[in-house]
Amino acid sequence: MEEKIASLKSLLAEWSDLSRAAFLLGWDQQTYMPPKGIEARGQQIGTLQKLAHERITSDEVGRLLEELQPYVDELPADSDETRLVKVTRRMYNKKTRVPPAMVAELAELASAGFGAWQVARAESNFALFQPHLEKLVDYRRRFAALFAPYDHVYDPLLDEYEPGMKTAQVQAIFSALRPQQVELIREITSSPPVDDSFLHGYFEEQKQWDFGVEVVTKFGYDWERGRQDRAAHPFTIPIALDDVRITTRFLQDYVGSALFSTMHETGHAFYELGVARSLDRTPLADGASMAIHESQSRMWENLVGRSMPFWEYFYPRLQEYFPSQLGNVDPKTFYKGINKVEPSLIRVEADEATYNLHIMLRLELEIALMEGSLEVKDLPEAWNARVQDYLGLTPPNDALGVLQDVHWSDGYFGYFPTYALGNLVSAQLWERINADIPDLTEQIRRGEFAALLGWLIENIHCHGAKLEPQELVQRVTGTGIDPVPYMRYLRTKYSQIYGL
Amino acid sequence: MEEKIASLKSLLAEWSDLSRAAFLLGWDQQTYMPPKGIEARGQQIGTLQKLAHERITSDEVGRLLEELQPYVDELPADSDETRLVKVTRRMYNKKTRVPPAMVAELAELASAGFGAWQVARAESNFALFQPHLEKLVDYRRRFAALFAPYDHVYDPLLDEYEPGMKTAQVQAIFSALRPQQVELIREITSSPPVDDSFLHGYFEEQKQWDFGVEVVTKFGYDWERGRQDRAAHPFTIPIALDDVRITTRFLQDYVGSALFSTMHETGHAFYELGVARSLDRTPLADGASMAIHESQSRMWENLVGRSMPFWEYFYPRLQEYFPSQLGNVDPKTFYKGINKVEPSLIRVEADEATYNLHIMLRLELEIALMEGSLEVKDLPEAWNARVQDYLGLTPPNDALGVLQDVHWSDGYFGYFPTYALGNLVSAQLWERINADIPDLTEQIRRGEFAALLGWLIENIHCHGAKLEPQELVQRVTGTGIDPVPYMRYLRTKYSQIYGL
Repeated sequence: MEEKIASLKSLLAEWSDLSRAAFLLGWDQQTYMPPKGIEARGQQIGTLQKLAHERITSDEVGRLLEELQPYVDELPADSDETRLVKVTRRMYNKKTRVPPAMVAELAELASAGFGAWQVARAESNFALFQPHLEKLVDYRRRFAALFAPYDHVYDPLLDEYEPGMKTAQVQAIFSALRPQQVELIREITSSPPVDDSFLHGYFEEQKQWDFGVEVVTKFGYDWERGRQDRAAHPFTIPIALDDVRITTRFLQDYVGSALFSTMHETGHAFYELGVARSLDRTPLADGASMAIHESQSRMWENLVGRSMPFWEYFYPRLQEYFPSQLGNVDPKTFYKGINKVEPSLIRVEADEATYNLHIMLRLELEIALMEGSLEVKDLPEAWNARVQDYLGLTPPNDALGVLQDVHWSDGYFGYFPTYALGNLVSAQLWERINADIPDLTEQIRRGEFAALLGWLIENIHCHGAKLEPQELVQRVTGTGIDPVPYMRYLRTKYSQIYGL
Repeated sequence: MEEKIASLKSLLAEWSDLSRAAFLLGWDQQTYMPPKGIEARGQQIGTLQKLAHERITSDEVGRLLEELQPYVDELPADSDETRLVKVTRRMYNKKTRVPPAMVAELAELASAGFGAWQVARAESNFALFQPHLEKLVDYRRRFAALFAPYDHVYDPLLDEYEPGMKTAQVQAIFSALRPQQVELIREITSSPPVDDSFLHGYFEEQKQWDFGVEVVTKFGYDWERGRQDRAAHPFTIPIALDDVRITTRFLQDYVGSALFSTMHETGHAFYELGVARSLDRTPLADGASMAIHESQSRMWENLVGRSMPFWEYFYPRLQEYFPSQLGNVDPKTFYKGINKVEPSLIRVEADEATYNLHIMLRLELEIALMEGSLEVKDLPEAWNARVQDYLGLTPPNDALGVLQDVHWSDGYFGYFPTYALGNLVSAQLWERINADIPDLTEQIRRGEFAALLGWLIENIHCHGAKLEPQELVQRVTGTGIDPVPYMRYLRTKYSQIYGL
């Protein structure tokens, strides 16, 4: 049996190498590739992904999984081998269920859809995107049908990003959350607004870069196991267990963009860097889910990076970098400024209090599209109605409305909820961490993050994808995914900032 | 048959994508990879190369080549299809001749050999490298035996880099060349030396970078189809037909290193960028041989970059970059300085007049090792004797002697001659080009290189690997590889510089 495990691991190592090589090609495309390299790059990434797919769906993998099942059934349920077979089987089953023709079809639809979306957004003309989105929605309905029977047609889509999570669960969580968030925002917007004008001005890019590097170095990001580069859209990419890179972008007229983005991506990178070495080059060398991944990035960005203790340590340094812009702004004012709440049209610019509402409306629209109760042609109207309902705003055009996100054009349906779930999980973990490290606030005030990072590695990162997301949250916090800690966090924070 | 050609091309496209992806991983390793990424990078490149090898040696490729032969026999001998089958068959035959166990063995020997060589060179201790080199020589003898019968045991090694070239041919060329080069150097070293002290001093790296970029931009390097980065050892890497990158390195105390290296690598890059689009993603999208490749790099570096007309245009610009260092050095003095001839111990630092002698002694030693007439343990002594004989110098230690080059430690035998052959071909082509473009010198004096690059694309680059190197030289110049033009070039140039 050791031999069969070794054979399986050897096939998976090739799958992993191909997948990670494709990641590097993608990283290069976003950072350094000369512009005319784009066409060949698409072919090269396509070939690597195709070969990776062939490896993980090969008959040999299927046979080995079959033969290994009785063996791992005898092992502890938590053993690496048991989980390796379980997670690989899950992947194998999902990927072999989709006919190669449909895999190719999605690549084509997404490629055309992305191109059309770019033009449609630039021209703020939904009609240009509509026929593509119709095909993509139709594709995703046929995709979901491959996994029948299910409780809900949206379940197979969600399951792509949140293994084991059901639509009904997400709906229940969001239903509990929404009225509380709406009420909180109502209270905040009825209070005197906070000033954040000092965040806008001229902030030299190199100084922003240096300060960001200083912060994440203090966090514990190991520059021998990663690097940071500029990219149009910040992302984190795990090239290898010892090579997890982040990217960032700079707005010279707003100091917050690069800074919080860098902390966010570093949170993602820590997760990939913390996976146990024994899981390397297997499907277990991954995060448990997108929501758990997002819980890590949002924790470093928000629970750490937008907290008062953090700025008690770092604000004097930031003032040294930008004396003319921030020299006369006191720490408390700065803290309030970076936590200003204001309902806005664009998800990626939303503050902590309003962010989840952007997600909820997307989830409802995705579900309606999949159920067939909403037609694509009616989507802009449905979008605008919900934005009005949840945020009290009216998008002046579709570029600032239904066309703002790339996800659908790329064929991603079921992804959005993971952002909001990640916020909830980050607060749940934060309560647990503060119970386990009672002086964490004091540590952060002193610029010490080793205990925090150590806790995350030990309790979250090292497991990789061995545990399903809800299993992991249950083990660590004692409950399932729960909106209460997040609401507690928001209410405490904003009560203090806005004097509610 | 069109269908079979399409099938073959589709397999070859995957081979190409895998190979080029491995190139990008190699580029990244030399430029941006964080240090601890090295182990995984070796695994990833190994996997990509293994899969590429499997593709090109697959039974399906063998069968398609078999079936296509009668079809392409009916086509013109020069058609893309005929050449594609011919060159692919050549690759297929060579690669399938080597048992997988020997492929793996070489990877291990080279990996251990390279590590040992690094230490041996650092400590200038040949004994540390000797056992590894013995194994590598033994390996290469067994490798050659796989291709028996042959005229000479060295032929199969040479053929790896110079398709169709025989040892006897190289020996004949070098025999004709050596006495003339030795005599030229004797005359030069008997003349009053030229001054090049002004090339050494402090030359700010960014200014060197900017000037180099200015030069190769004028040459016609398209920054939308390539880029330049820093690397410890300069190289050119074809990621794709529209993405061919160069690297360079800087010595702050010597202005020549980065500059001539940048022109050299740009010459390599032009070759890859000039391959006809119809040959893309096949084995024909490559240079004809290493010597032809080197003829391109040496042409831009030496025949263009170390010529008086070139500096008549560019020297005023260089003086603007470095006024305090070069403001008082006149163009003629500068020109003489960059063409100073001085026998030296290190090949990569050798001038045009002495360079080939470094190659000749390596070739003789390689042949003796392969023939068995020289034992590895006696190599340092044989090396030093030849250096004394050809260059009149005695290496003070093995680091400056037999241990200076990486090639043998990596398992490369048969590669060295291509450097000298490239020099010869560059001069042959140069005479032809000047006949076809009578005012080329004037154009260069005006900083115009479009006609030159256009000629190279049309006559050399566009053919890719369709023609064997000697066939290509024959077609373009009307003769085989011939040392006369190169000697004519050297003698004319140095007669003028040294007043011979």
